[in-house]
Amino acid sequence: MSDVPKFVRLREEGPREGFQIEPGPIDTTDKIALIDALSRTGVKRIQIASFVNPKAVPGWADAEAVVHGFSASEDVAYTALWFSDSGLKRALAFRDKLHVEGALIVSASDSFSRVNLNRSFDEHLALMKKQMSSLQANDISVRAAGVMAAFGCNYSGDVGAQRVIDVTAALMQVAEEGGEKIEQVTLADSMGWCTPARTEALVGAIRNRWPELQIVLHLHDTRGMGIASAHAALKMGIADFDSTVGGLGGCPFAGRPGATGNIATEELALLCEEMGISTGIDLDALIDVARMAERLVGHPLPSTLTRAGSFASCRRNMTTQPLPDLPV
Amino acid sequence: MSDVPKFVRLREEGPREGFQIEPGPIDTTDKIALIDALSRTGVKRIQIASFVNPKAVPGWADAEAVVHGFSASEDVAYTALWFSDSGLKRALAFRDKLHVEGALIVSASDSFSRVNLNRSFDEHLALMKKQMSSLQANDISVRAAGVMAAFGCNYSGDVGAQRVIDVTAALMQVAEEGGEKIEQVTLADSMGWCTPARTEALVGAIRNRWPELQIVLHLHDTRGMGIASAHAALKMGIADFDSTVGGLGGCPFAGRPGATGNIATEELALLCEEMGISTGIDLDALIDVARMAERLVGHPLPSTLTRAGSFASCRRNMTTQPLPDLPV
Repeated sequence: MSDVPKFVRLREEGPREGFQIEPGPIDTTDKIALIDALSRTGVKRIQIASFVNPKAVPGWADAEAVVHGFSASEDVAYTALWFSDSGLKRALAFRDKLHVEGALIVSASDSFSRVNLNRSFDEHLALMKKQMSSLQANDISVRAAGVMAAFGCNYSGDVGAQRVIDVTAALMQVAEEGGEKIEQVTLADSMGWCTPARTEALVGAIRNRWPELQIVLHLHDTRGMGIASAHAALKMGIADFDSTVGGLGGCPFAGRPGATGNIATEELALLCEEMGISTGIDLDALIDVARMAERLVGHPLPSTLTRAGSFASCRRNMTTQPLPDLPV
Repeated sequence: MSDVPKFVRLREEGPREGFQIEPGPIDTTDKIALIDALSRTGVKRIQIASFVNPKAVPGWADAEAVVHGFSASEDVAYTALWFSDSGLKRALAFRDKLHVEGALIVSASDSFSRVNLNRSFDEHLALMKKQMSSLQANDISVRAAGVMAAFGCNYSGDVGAQRVIDVTAALMQVAEEGGEKIEQVTLADSMGWCTPARTEALVGAIRNRWPELQIVLHLHDTRGMGIASAHAALKMGIADFDSTVGGLGGCPFAGRPGATGNIATEELALLCEEMGISTGIDLDALIDVARMAERLVGHPLPSTLTRAGSFASCRRNMTTQPLPDLPV
């Protein structure tokens, strides 16, 4: 029997990932237009903003204006990212439009924690403990954990499945001490170390340790292995993926300027479609949004499917010529 | 038991594929420098030129000068491509340096045959019959078949495994009538229709029909599925792949300007390395050649690994900081 899931949930992170890394300023109205266009493609979950320090991430200085301005669709859950109590407060101001979830997120690599979050692993874990109280004080339960640099780190090298297990166990203990239970873990390939072999090893180890834990994969295509890693994960039954339209994004603190970011949502959707997996996405509509994203950022994005177009668009546009009979 | 091969043979086609499609003229000396650099990376087979009509492919008007000028390494087989008798004659003039193989190559799609080869499938098959006689007259046996557009066609849509089986059978019959036996077939994804699911279906169907036939895959990454398709094929035991350094190339007649070409050799080598498969390739040396190729063509190539660098180079360049003990 195949482990391949029947339905895959694609969690679009293009707005949040993309606008934090683009060098040029992007108009707030353009950000809003992209989010509104994404809402019409069939994606069910979109991360639309980052409530972080505008000095560290100037691209998200207008987070409030973006969240205020976009048109929420009933069928879509809109999320945001933050790491501090002040970020949480900014998100809570939009509880009418945002799906504010409790999540404990750390980096498996201490070095990346210092570079990306400006604190050590221990300091950040202590902060997560404190933030859990703030979440609970606002009637938000904590069910999700996130492990950044879960596949490897440009600052400390290989990470390894055992380290990710230990880090996840630490997050589970923090949750338990606060009366919460982690039901989902996002394994984030923040710096593009995923390969199919690493994905199989990591997913296998986590599942072996916690068979009931829901695994979400956040894969980067930095070394060309993103879609192949997603394919390996789909074969193991993983049904939840973060991705970005057009392949927008990349991490500003990954230490490799110009490195490719997240796997492209439209390529992941095509992969699923070809495997007979439903995603609910209108692929041609999504490719149109990827082209719109390229116009907004003013340069080509990594997705090659955006340039080639879908099989369906190929079939529509070609001169229909049936294949001739063979002479033998 | 795993079907994954222990050793994979990567057939480098960057020079031939790349220089046929690049818009700008590239100096003959630069072409030679790239071939000579490739000879030092551990690849065992390099397709270095195309003996085609210079009016149709101006980038290969200097094929003779390139083949004359490069330095042949004893450990490497150098090949060339041609489709006509005059092309074969041009290749035969270099039998001291070139590995001249007999191959019968057709397009599974009649439409693509007309666009790419300027003749119908039937006309081209007749030409292949004639060329087999020329090959035999020069003491060259015919063991290989090639099927272009084996995964789909931008001019006629889906192709399907049965059509590829019929076309391969037609080539086998041509060979048999001439007293030859086809032992190897290259399935070429000329226009980027490969996906993991299509690859599994096609490889499975061909292998089911001819269990002893050696299958070579020539995959394009036009829709972002190239490396994932190679991964699926490796899991089925395929051990021979065409690829191009940096992802040079693409087909000038594929009808999609700007579309991405072949899978990048260095990304395929990394995929294999991570799966514990030997390729004999020095990955960092190959990435250096990919960067050289980018300088020669004057624009970024599709390979993302070229920009990010290998894991090994990451490990060498980072400040070594051991991961701290966890607090729990």
